[in-house]
Amino acid sequence: MSADIDVKAELKARAAEVEAYLAGCLRGRDIPERLLASMEYSLQAGGKRLRPALVLSFARLFGETVERVMPFAAALELIHTYSLIHDDLPAMDDDDLRRGKPSNHKQFDEATAILAGDGLLTDAFGLMFSCPQDMSAQRVLSAAQTVALAAGSSGMVGGQALDMEYTARPGVRLDELRSMHAMKTGALITASCVAGAHLAGALAPELDRARRYGENLGAAFQIADDILDVVGDTKTLGKPVGSDERQGKTTYPSLLGLDKSRELARERAKSAVEALAGLEHIEAVFLRALARYIVERVN
Amino acid sequence: MSADIDVKAELKARAAEVEAYLAGCLRGRDIPERLLASMEYSLQAGGKRLRPALVLSFARLFGETVERVMPFAAALELIHTYSLIHDDLPAMDDDDLRRGKPSNHKQFDEATAILAGDGLLTDAFGLMFSCPQDMSAQRVLSAAQTVALAAGSSGMVGGQALDMEYTARPGVRLDELRSMHAMKTGALITASCVAGAHLAGALAPELDRARRYGENLGAAFQIADDILDVVGDTKTLGKPVGSDERQGKTTYPSLLGLDKSRELARERAKSAVEALAGLEHIEAVFLRALARYIVERVN
Repeated sequence: MSADIDVKAELKARAAEVEAYLAGCLRGRDIPERLLASMEYSLQAGGKRLRPALVLSFARLFGETVERVMPFAAALELIHTYSLIHDDLPAMDDDDLRRGKPSNHKQFDEATAILAGDGLLTDAFGLMFSCPQDMSAQRVLSAAQTVALAAGSSGMVGGQALDMEYTARPGVRLDELRSMHAMKTGALITASCVAGAHLAGALAPELDRARRYGENLGAAFQIADDILDVVGDTKTLGKPVGSDERQGKTTYPSLLGLDKSRELARERAKSAVEALAGLEHIEAVFLRALARYIVERVN
Repeated sequence: MSADIDVKAELKARAAEVEAYLAGCLRGRDIPERLLASMEYSLQAGGKRLRPALVLSFARLFGETVERVMPFAAALELIHTYSLIHDDLPAMDDDDLRRGKPSNHKQFDEATAILAGDGLLTDAFGLMFSCPQDMSAQRVLSAAQTVALAAGSSGMVGGQALDMEYTARPGVRLDELRSMHAMKTGALITASCVAGAHLAGALAPELDRARRYGENLGAAFQIADDILDVVGDTKTLGKPVGSDERQGKTTYPSLLGLDKSRELARERAKSAVEALAGLEHIEAVFLRALARYIVERVN
């Protein structure tokens, strides 16, 4: 059955739904013109919209509707977008390009980029709380708490701090690399899955499935990303190939080689698939296919 | 009765309670060492802790206890602190000093300061959701929603964007100045009052009192701040006197003169006092005295 799903087309369709919502979600409020333009510039720069897709998929899997959780799902993309804007800043990774276009501070200016990031992060929480009134406040609160912890200083922000520390330091070990990535990218991906499940009122065993799926998907995703930076092409990546090596970053391929990295990515994808074993809902089929697809790209 | 309250001593006592909580609130989590040090450096740099004091006071006024709303109150100080760190950055106001000490990016570095701000902002939402389990999720959600909207791109972040725009532009009008300050400082002060009331389950008329008090207190506070930048002394301010003028900032004194500015501050303080008219609770007495105290400093 799972072989029948065209994951790429399905992801694209879901991204389109999310983007339709994102296009309007900052309108009708008193946001200063240039700040709004800067926020929307990055928010509408494309991408897979993976995090919202995971929120929506896990919420449906456990009984909620796409429409009702869309504001919350969109919030995850605001958080992801803010993190990209701040990561690109001159004081951080100093990247001039993002998805083939000038990065936010290049298109606008540094102050505007910092504020656009701050605005997107804060507004994300505003969006999370704007789910329908009849949704259980406790569910929304649990989901938002999950996201806040994953995005904060012991999650995504902490991971970026470690990434900068490690980039400047030789001899980074595999366990350090793994836990840095678990914080920097894994935590928010996992939180997207768990938050979606919370919104649908999932109980402990289901929340645990969501967590295990997310952690393994996030790891597979990161390893695949490292591999693509070596073997991909500039057009697909939207950034120059080999940028990790030029920046002296420790990666899975630099520590383990390409073959071993591919094997590890496959293992993590397999664990993600297994976390949802036995579930026959169409969303479980999609999520399992998604995990396989992520590592197929690098084989 | 109100004359009997020593506002300064009372504020100091409340600040001490908040600081005891702040000292531990980031501990016991996996925050990278340097990032944690940077967050705590700014969080523990002192200040009046006005926003937490307002949350606590309005929560007590309408029936909650200090202990139960302390995590939420502390969250407001995390948000205020993050905004100071980012405002001081070279790309923003480029301030080397904050409360008489090196600003965060001077003490650490720019990347760490950006991430410390991001971490404090995100962790603030995590703290808000860690109020006691038996507190109504709906109340916590309403309070958090109030804060998110006030701190975001149509509130505090938007106000900072306008402040930067206006600093570079001659001929800023009084109505522009007023609405910029209402966003930059007024919104979060107002949200502190309203969120405290929400946490205690206050209804519409009480929420409206909290909002009117906050808006007027915030305005009085800002006008007083502008006046102190002209007539204060460096030691009390923790920054050089006259910095607004040197930066070419439009202020209440620069538009209206000192006397008219003092009068306006008194008017707004009076409106704050009136918003709580008829309430005999000890917290109402404190809050009215606080509004008077803020403008007394400049007379």
